Amino acid sequence: MLEESAQHLNQRFSRQIPMARQMGLRITAWDGRTLRMDAPLAPNLNDKGTGFAGSLATLATLAGWAVATLLAEGVVGGPCEVAVFKSEIRYLAPVTGDFYVLVPVPAEEITQAFGLELQERSRAKLALTAAIYQDGEEKVRYRGRYAVWMRQA
Amino acid sequence: MLEESAQHLNQRFSRQIPMARQMGLRITAWDGRTLRMDAPLAPNLNDKGTGFAGSLATLATLAGWAVATLLAEGVVGGPCEVAVFKSEIRYLAPVTGDFYVLVPVPAEEITQAFGLELQERSRAKLALTAAIYQDGEEKVRYRGRYAVWMRQA
Repeated sequence: MLEESAQHLNQRFSRQIPMARQMGLRITAWDGRTLRMDAPLAPNLNDKGTGFAGSLATLATLAGWAVATLLAEGVVGGPCEVAVFKSEIRYLAPVTGDFYVLVPVPAEEITQAFGLELQERSRAKLALTAAIYQDGEEKVRYRGRYAVWMRQA
Repeated sequence: MLEESAQHLNQRFSRQIPMARQMGLRITAWDGRTLRMDAPLAPNLNDKGTGFAGSLATLATLAGWAVATLLAEGVVGGPCEVAVFKSEIRYLAPVTGDFYVLVPVPAEEITQAFGLELQERSRAKLALTAAIYQDGEEKVRYRGRYAVWMRQA
């Protein structure tokens, strides 16, 4: 059973982001320490019959966005806006089946500094890493930087 | 009137890459020096009603892939495989309307070295830059590295 805040994000993706819906991207686990988001291969194929780089980049970027949003809204207790502003990605091996991304929450001193800055300045930045797997094998490595700000009531 | 090799790539995208079709990505210009690929905003919206980062990353990645493919197949005179293996992207400003990417062909000494290596070793690597614009204003900067190899007959 998925946590309510993560369920709510899945509903937002499905309602507000047409490409997330078309790609079949869904948060499938979130325990406050690691977020997992899954994707089926079929809608995300490329010309070689493997995972399309655009879909892989999208999955990692959106999963990082989800973690930044969950952490920020957990600190603030209300809605926050989050936008990626920089990222790097390495494609290590072709994806030949359904795949998923894991995004770990950063070390506690980093998330505490992020939370303090967000509360004091109403905005903060957060760097996150992610990795995409298929059957437990790492296929893609990602690093993204996100800007977060409190939404005006 | 779009050049035949670029038309052929648009047909491949539309037939073989479901997400390129859903996003409405199309090469709209290719003169051997710069490639332009366009995207409509509507299928590529995010939760904020602006361009979805995943779609922006996909457009830049696919347009770079197209240039690497056109250059490689121009050198070889036959089909080549191309795969992105690394990229960086910076999102400079929100996209609020239809958008397009421009990918310049690198300087002649770079493309010549790429062509020679591809002919001698049947494989080569190519670094490309791209920028996404809306109404002439730069919104996204991208750099990608592509691996190219000659397809077995």
